[in-house]
Amino acid sequence: MHAGFSTLADFEALLRDLPAPDAEAARAARARDAQLTKPPGSLGRLEEIAHWYCGWRGEARAQVRAPQVIVFAGNHGVVAQGVSAFPAEVTAQMVANFQAGGAAVNQLALAAGARMDVCALDLDRPTGDISTGPAMTEAEVIAALRAGWEAVAPETDLLVVGEMGIGNTTSAAAIALALFGGVAGDWTGCGTGIDAAGLDRKTQAVARAVTVNHGATDGLAVLRCLGGRELAAMAGAILRARMMRVPVLLDGFICTAAAACLEVAQPGALDHTLAGHVSAEPGHARLLDRLCKAPLLSLGLRLGEGSGGVLAMGVVHSALACHSGMATFAEAGVAEG
Amino acid sequence: MHAGFSTLADFEALLRDLPAPDAEAARAARARDAQLTKPPGSLGRLEEIAHWYCGWRGEARAQVRAPQVIVFAGNHGVVAQGVSAFPAEVTAQMVANFQAGGAAVNQLALAAGARMDVCALDLDRPTGDISTGPAMTEAEVIAALRAGWEAVAPETDLLVVGEMGIGNTTSAAAIALALFGGVAGDWTGCGTGIDAAGLDRKTQAVARAVTVNHGATDGLAVLRCLGGRELAAMAGAILRARMMRVPVLLDGFICTAAAACLEVAQPGALDHTLAGHVSAEPGHARLLDRLCKAPLLSLGLRLGEGSGGVLAMGVVHSALACHSGMATFAEAGVAEG
Repeated sequence: MHAGFSTLADFEALLRDLPAPDAEAARAARARDAQLTKPPGSLGRLEEIAHWYCGWRGEARAQVRAPQVIVFAGNHGVVAQGVSAFPAEVTAQMVANFQAGGAAVNQLALAAGARMDVCALDLDRPTGDISTGPAMTEAEVIAALRAGWEAVAPETDLLVVGEMGIGNTTSAAAIALALFGGVAGDWTGCGTGIDAAGLDRKTQAVARAVTVNHGATDGLAVLRCLGGRELAAMAGAILRARMMRVPVLLDGFICTAAAACLEVAQPGALDHTLAGHVSAEPGHARLLDRLCKAPLLSLGLRLGEGSGGVLAMGVVHSALACHSGMATFAEAGVAEG
Repeated sequence: MHAGFSTLADFEALLRDLPAPDAEAARAARARDAQLTKPPGSLGRLEEIAHWYCGWRGEARAQVRAPQVIVFAGNHGVVAQGVSAFPAEVTAQMVANFQAGGAAVNQLALAAGARMDVCALDLDRPTGDISTGPAMTEAEVIAALRAGWEAVAPETDLLVVGEMGIGNTTSAAAIALALFGGVAGDWTGCGTGIDAAGLDRKTQAVARAVTVNHGATDGLAVLRCLGGRELAAMAGAILRARMMRVPVLLDGFICTAAAACLEVAQPGALDHTLAGHVSAEPGHARLLDRLCKAPLLSLGLRLGEGSGGVLAMGVVHSALACHSGMATFAEAGVAEG
């Protein structure tokens, strides 16, 4: 589907008029829940997930039928600062691996029964080095937002957006610092596994990036100046999902940083999202805390690719399977407590 | 398969000669892991799960192909003390619900692709009231252990044992108190949802049960005197799985209390198990802590039935899907960091 925006001002206008969940469907889902053959509340967060999902889908007894994961890939000028343990060529190599079905997220998507799409964004044209200037022009960020918007399949009813981009934890840390303050060290971690000297270079690059791009104060300007193409594409896909009332599971630090730009631009913009997991990248827990999102899983993942979000799809699928498939006390002839 | 024991002494002899994991397969799994297209360690606990599972299965590249959940049901004399929010009839009603496919665990098993079996144990013959004497005779506990042993399917390669039994959190709390000490209030919670007066009655019943059965000092005597048929059956199935080198995911408080009797009887008896989740029943986290088991999930479930264990099957399945399905750096032509 073609995007309904061609400037950042258009995109902001969409953010100011977001659809809400269907309150009646959510109420009906809670009423159904009270009749299911289990003590009230005994399915814990599975119940909360089911009510949330049913509200967004506008059905009292919804099921997850067409989950989709989209992996966006981009390259980053800031790798010139020595911020990553891997060379920039790995981004394209991993895209080929995604396309051949060999990466972790491929196996996880298969296990979750999810459709997987891969979207490589101008890999031969890295974004500008954020430690010396803005990552993207307005035209570039709009192209990436549109790529994300257009990648969401029309039948999708649960979305995960993931990413691959050597250097992109540097970008995510800079976004978090610009949006939420603190010092660069609060948000900068070892990413794919740099050593102490690399972490020092990376922390300094994050600090310089925010200083150099200090003119970027609102969420979308931060995304343009400190983000990357794959981060902007994730934001575009998350907004598209909102317009379609499709629930989204956030993945790790980079995905959450991209999403945070939307929330800062428009509070409530992430109400259709849950945090799929909390990663081992230390800035992620802090970022989820700022967004008031409690993660579904905490298994020490720090891979990106959408891996933690796709793993959490199983929990959401199971929550809806219980909610919509269980018998009521009356149907089963079970005495209520 | 017929059980290799007909007395508790036979059962104890089995516990003293338990099979170990295949160290060579576990080593080969770790070596394979280091070659997969991801930064080392980036799949967090999924990597640990894969190595553990491959070791027990004796294969460097194992997959989960035949998961099984068995729900054991039993009735408890201690319900006469007013310890539950539900009447004892609910045990049989819920067994019918399991058989008809209407309970939460049915939906979760379907979502996990797991075979589900239901095993009702003499529901019309509740165990003795533990607050006034032992729950079972030796013949009764042996029959229940054997029922559990025989319920594990020969092809099973991942097992969850769950339970249904009105009053059985009282039994689990008494087991935990007898095995690990403290006071009754440390281990007694609201179960399916009793009120404050009920919790008080329940706590007193737990304390009396341990006092009255003070002669039970070893793990198997505690299981006989303070357990129930479904708890003994879970213990029997967990030992059978160990003999078959089948990994087990522990469910909630009751399942873990039954398992703890094995671990106290023979340290290391639960090495083939992981904690699938930590439940909202407050004694469960404490019990897992005593067993040094870190739960895979923490979603506030407090239902039993095997529900949390079956939910965690998805994580184990995904861990093995990644481990065994991913491409290596060499296969994918990706540069190593």
